[in-house]
Amino acid sequence: MNLCDFAPEYIRAIHPYQPGKPISELAREMGLDERNIVKLASNENPLGTSPLALEAMIHALHDAARYPDGSGFELKQALSKLYAVDTEQIVLGNGSNDVLDLAARVFLKPGAAAVYSQHAFAVYPLVTQTIGANGISVSAREYGHDLPAMLDAITQETRMVFIASPNNPTGTLSSADDLLRFMERVSKDVLVVLDEAYNEYLPPANQSDSINWLKRFPNLIITRTFSKVYGLAGIRVGFGLAHPQVANLMNRVRQPFNVNSIGLVGALAALQDREFIQRSYALNRAGMLQLTDGFRKLGIEYIPSYGNFITFRVEGDAANTSLVFQNLLRQGVIVRPLGIYEMPHHLRVTVGLESENQRFLKALANALGELV
Amino acid sequence: MNLCDFAPEYIRAIHPYQPGKPISELAREMGLDERNIVKLASNENPLGTSPLALEAMIHALHDAARYPDGSGFELKQALSKLYAVDTEQIVLGNGSNDVLDLAARVFLKPGAAAVYSQHAFAVYPLVTQTIGANGISVSAREYGHDLPAMLDAITQETRMVFIASPNNPTGTLSSADDLLRFMERVSKDVLVVLDEAYNEYLPPANQSDSINWLKRFPNLIITRTFSKVYGLAGIRVGFGLAHPQVANLMNRVRQPFNVNSIGLVGALAALQDREFIQRSYALNRAGMLQLTDGFRKLGIEYIPSYGNFITFRVEGDAANTSLVFQNLLRQGVIVRPLGIYEMPHHLRVTVGLESENQRFLKALANALGELV
Repeated sequence: MNLCDFAPEYIRAIHPYQPGKPISELAREMGLDERNIVKLASNENPLGTSPLALEAMIHALHDAARYPDGSGFELKQALSKLYAVDTEQIVLGNGSNDVLDLAARVFLKPGAAAVYSQHAFAVYPLVTQTIGANGISVSAREYGHDLPAMLDAITQETRMVFIASPNNPTGTLSSADDLLRFMERVSKDVLVVLDEAYNEYLPPANQSDSINWLKRFPNLIITRTFSKVYGLAGIRVGFGLAHPQVANLMNRVRQPFNVNSIGLVGALAALQDREFIQRSYALNRAGMLQLTDGFRKLGIEYIPSYGNFITFRVEGDAANTSLVFQNLLRQGVIVRPLGIYEMPHHLRVTVGLESENQRFLKALANALGELV
Repeated sequence: MNLCDFAPEYIRAIHPYQPGKPISELAREMGLDERNIVKLASNENPLGTSPLALEAMIHALHDAARYPDGSGFELKQALSKLYAVDTEQIVLGNGSNDVLDLAARVFLKPGAAAVYSQHAFAVYPLVTQTIGANGISVSAREYGHDLPAMLDAITQETRMVFIASPNNPTGTLSSADDLLRFMERVSKDVLVVLDEAYNEYLPPANQSDSINWLKRFPNLIITRTFSKVYGLAGIRVGFGLAHPQVANLMNRVRQPFNVNSIGLVGALAALQDREFIQRSYALNRAGMLQLTDGFRKLGIEYIPSYGNFITFRVEGDAANTSLVFQNLLRQGVIVRPLGIYEMPHHLRVTVGLESENQRFLKALANALGELV
């Protein structure tokens, strides 16, 4: 077909992102009962959604026939107050994926380059390739970002650097000192995207002052999401905080109604439900201990994580890891294989409810027992 | 700021789309009570949302913490059955705006060109400019698309043609015969986007067989939306039907979770609520008669419309039109000025409930009376 040959080579070469398997899909494929399936594959909040947000969204549905407020007035007001930034510094997105995409559309083009770390979030290479820019993957250091090496990888053509902290899928954190040193050294002609999707799971001692850095660094954008601790992954709301001129350019490319009206209302309410955030944080801390304890008892090597998930290694060759993944699926437990992250020996599991973690650990022990 | 100078000139030159004024914004600005405001500015369904869809969405909110099914399995199954197409021919979008944007990202690039009609939907030039392609606007003929002239405007560089039928904001329709003749003549190397957002408001006699044309024309994509007759504008769901290879390329560029989970569920239920669609259609027909009757009594010239809106002319210079628009706002009635559509003498009003149409006509009579 001739028409499709006109599409740029870099678009024809895209391998679309493979999301975690939905519960309904596994149930269909394996003939399992949906209620017996434990999904720990997409770093979702096991407590569900803030009850305040749920209530607000149910109410808002009665206005579903109206277009959303394309300016996101009320949500931006609330974010502006909470983070002490101007509303002109905010870009709302259909999930933070959308914010990453908008930044790439503004600052990349064919011939330009973006730098990111090995084992970092799959969407960075994806948005880079969609523009036809060159993606430069910098080898990780103990599964984390090697910031000095990333600095060295920047060339004249580099317009963006993606840094995830904590990083998905490895759970590693770049310290505030290291990030600050990076920002001080990097050229002001390079946009640094600091992706803090998992920020709310950090203990107070590990929280950085990153939003304050926006005052010093006009080339910094911080992205956050309502998909994790706020429990709104299905509703798609994320945002970026940046210099007003950067935000302004991104808002030009943004689709006028990129965030749906239920998302605008749900995010606003979720932001105010501090009790739910606290409860989600505490559950995650306890569940992380439960999982790491379980791994130690099973003699499993894992990467210490600052997120709401943890990545562990299955001994032996990569085929073993795949066998364990499949075996878990047959037991109704969904985790995430990390082949596309160049980690074919690893699996990632989301911290669930205590009973879900228990179920996963038991299923994992079974799967490992059957390997022999 | 140096960084922003690296953004392409065509992105820095974008004027973002101006949505219809939200009710809350007018209330804030004019100190009016929201309950007394009539919004007839965004071609929304005045009956609201299908009750079946509402119920399904309320239920689905309890899974809001889970990511959406990125493949849209169930909604695609239903669309495939309803329209007798393969699921591989379907592209789901965050509103049909997203589908238009995806098509532009795949088939346009700097140096390529897209052809559209004067007075056609503002998103066509917008998505074209965002890619840095050249937009070619072809003069309208009696406010409608001049298809032979659009054919003549196609050059070697043209990769896309946008045709809206019915067209927003003029309400004009291109006949099935004219469209078919266009498809037969246009080069197979040009993607024709047939935007049928208002299709469900067409009387049976005016419905075309466009979806069947997909079998003959691999360079055709038909876009539809759940924002109009289905009453889901706030939830953001649209879709495109195309050749599997075209759809495949667009799905590579698509963000994996571009459609939220409430939208997937709401659209599925809305599709099945034929009673609501019938009721919405009938209300629109009656309201259209009410408005055209009113216009005739007021001696106002209007463009006969096939949509759920109608565009009318205010006599005198463009300043008069602006005065009438402002006067309506002060009376709590929001319509849409059409300056950005090169129609500074016209205003567009959405067909509302009988009482809303009445309120609008009365307010319009007042506004015209005060002009003198």
